[in-house]
Amino acid sequence: MALFKNIFPVRGRPTAELLTVGTELVTGTTVNTNASYLGRELTQLGFRVEHQCACRDETEAIQEALQRALARSQVIVICGGLGPTPDDITRQTLAEFFGVPLVLSRAQYRQIQRYYRSRGRTVPAIVKPEAYFPANAKPVFNEFGIALGFIIEERGRVILVVPGVPRELVRLFETRLKPFLQGRFSRLRPLASLIVKTVGLSEPAVMRRLGRRFFRMGQFEFGIYPEAGEVGLRVYADSPALIRRLRLRVKKVLGRHIYSFSEESLEAAIGRELVRKKGTLAIAESCTGGRIAELLTGVPGASRYLAGAVVAYQNGVKTRILDVPDQLIKRRGAVSREVVLRMAFGVRARFGATLGIGVTGIAGPGGGSREKPVGLVYLAIASAGEKKAWKEQFRGERLHIQDRAAKKALEYLWRWLKR
Amino acid sequence: MALFKNIFPVRGRPTAELLTVGTELVTGTTVNTNASYLGRELTQLGFRVEHQCACRDETEAIQEALQRALARSQVIVICGGLGPTPDDITRQTLAEFFGVPLVLSRAQYRQIQRYYRSRGRTVPAIVKPEAYFPANAKPVFNEFGIALGFIIEERGRVILVVPGVPRELVRLFETRLKPFLQGRFSRLRPLASLIVKTVGLSEPAVMRRLGRRFFRMGQFEFGIYPEAGEVGLRVYADSPALIRRLRLRVKKVLGRHIYSFSEESLEAAIGRELVRKKGTLAIAESCTGGRIAELLTGVPGASRYLAGAVVAYQNGVKTRILDVPDQLIKRRGAVSREVVLRMAFGVRARFGATLGIGVTGIAGPGGGSREKPVGLVYLAIASAGEKKAWKEQFRGERLHIQDRAAKKALEYLWRWLKR
Repeated sequence: MALFKNIFPVRGRPTAELLTVGTELVTGTTVNTNASYLGRELTQLGFRVEHQCACRDETEAIQEALQRALARSQVIVICGGLGPTPDDITRQTLAEFFGVPLVLSRAQYRQIQRYYRSRGRTVPAIVKPEAYFPANAKPVFNEFGIALGFIIEERGRVILVVPGVPRELVRLFETRLKPFLQGRFSRLRPLASLIVKTVGLSEPAVMRRLGRRFFRMGQFEFGIYPEAGEVGLRVYADSPALIRRLRLRVKKVLGRHIYSFSEESLEAAIGRELVRKKGTLAIAESCTGGRIAELLTGVPGASRYLAGAVVAYQNGVKTRILDVPDQLIKRRGAVSREVVLRMAFGVRARFGATLGIGVTGIAGPGGGSREKPVGLVYLAIASAGEKKAWKEQFRGERLHIQDRAAKKALEYLWRWLKR
Repeated sequence: MALFKNIFPVRGRPTAELLTVGTELVTGTTVNTNASYLGRELTQLGFRVEHQCACRDETEAIQEALQRALARSQVIVICGGLGPTPDDITRQTLAEFFGVPLVLSRAQYRQIQRYYRSRGRTVPAIVKPEAYFPANAKPVFNEFGIALGFIIEERGRVILVVPGVPRELVRLFETRLKPFLQGRFSRLRPLASLIVKTVGLSEPAVMRRLGRRFFRMGQFEFGIYPEAGEVGLRVYADSPALIRRLRLRVKKVLGRHIYSFSEESLEAAIGRELVRKKGTLAIAESCTGGRIAELLTGVPGASRYLAGAVVAYQNGVKTRILDVPDQLIKRRGAVSREVVLRMAFGVRARFGATLGIGVTGIAGPGGGSREKPVGLVYLAIASAGEKKAWKEQFRGERLHIQDRAAKKALEYLWRWLKR
């Protein structure tokens, strides 16, 4: 297994750990996106994030986890359990742990009053405790919501306590906690990093192309992240020069499969290319049901290049709006090379766009046959002088097939634009 | 804060804990959906999930976490780090920890050969170690992928080790681990549970309606989970009779805001209603860019009631395909009550559906003005004899506004269907 021996974790940096509080996290009712957000942000700031734990909204569990964190990490971020419901006990638990009373932040209480007043209501009694902080802490004013955050410095450790509402967490981190950490750890140098996003290669194929040589170039931390149709790479190193060399190497071996050297999404990269080429796009989706349009319209400014889309779920729509001849559907079937080409062609003409995309397929679980099994998808692109269709066979469940087909359409579109 | 005093965690059950292994998890490159899946499944089986930890792909970190888990939990599920890349060290680390060699599972190796043969390739050298298991373990054959799972019983603890590929994890858990745990803990009684999904009420509003009385009805574990426009409740108790009483109470106080007593999504509930009423639906989306169609088409069998959708991103599309008069757009603006009504009406007629939905708004970050700020969204529903429009003002970022607007449209559609 130790094929590439010289991958070393980056050491000698202040350690950080995350404690996300919430019974819903350990019992799995909520996906812990806060942990991934905080892990990413702390890593980028230059901390070595060593642990991430979730515990129940229970005094004992929180205190035990805090005790352990204090013993091993310099920075501890505690997230969640600051809300108004009776199971939110993080605030009191920390005050008890340090043996201090809770005190009111008048600024936060005024913010709460403003919040409710602007919604035409008075402050409910159960909400007031959210403006309190342990007496040994520095309050962190939360102008983005209700719950006050706070920072405790004890025993040489820094403990940041933030609400678990994702939107508030992100804003508080950006505007208050990040500047605080940068000031407090003023000699912290952000890690040099390399992000590479590729499309059209599998994880083993990417590894094969990188080869042993890549991993002999120096000491760095390497992560490879496959997700529906894409593979991302993330490399952290202390040395920016090494990162530059690695980047050149990656560019050489992965070439046209790279669509970005940043966190940019494939749909944003496509948007960038369309703007550059002054192209416009129209989409005719059947089995993907709006996913392609959804991805592309998620990008700010998409209205510059996206004319629109038709989700042609029933055959009548293909005929009436996309001008696919009824006879053709009858003869070849709605899921066929001929029909998908007409869809791409039809939507392009109908919307007056320079490019048209068509997708038709069988997402399942029903609707498959021996000749046309579940997962069969046809994709097409049409421009003024050219059109092309592809046949794909995906496996797995409905949502998976839909996602893969949508991503495949974006991949072909990206390649088309980059020819 | 302790407004509702008698919420007790359910005790006296075997304890379980999760250890997800992966540097990508602590550095936040990957969202830990495996942890939430496993937490949910173990809780439903009747275990008390106490902790969930993620650690880096490092020998020391894994062994330290395992040591701690062995000291406190009866069942430990370790997930991830079984793949082919050099940072995947979970397998060897566990063998080292218990001082045993790794041995080959011939069955798994044959499966790996089959897997590659069916893709017209030979087995890469770096993949073979994935068929090994520590000699003190029982192998768990993985017919859904490459990496072998295994179960270790040591020191009175049960340690389940499973690959982190989500699709494989889910299938292995369903077909092998769940039956194993049910056999091994044969006296384990699943908890009685109540799931309630509501739309159109805020979290505090739900709490207010439940009131003190609800929380005085007995001993149970209570979770409330707000997400974009919806609030979910989850209650676990030992007593099925108590769950039945709580359900009646919930039904009484939350009434028509409840759209499901199961994990069913709002879009699935809408589909169910449309099928029952033999209705069909057509959607005209502007600022939501295909999100409504995407949500509705994610439900198996959506083709029975969803005719299709138009994403009218540029004004020309509204005119040409949805028959919104050009003059009306010029006079009232594309984001207006008049235009959204015409969109709903137009798409319904164009697709020959019984119901039409229209959405138009400003998702931002650009495009806002003093009179029509970012976040302003008009929604409309039109049927044969009736039409109605709503004006909404959302806050936050582009994707958030798009998601909220899409969810609001589904909420109004649900209410329309349930009148």
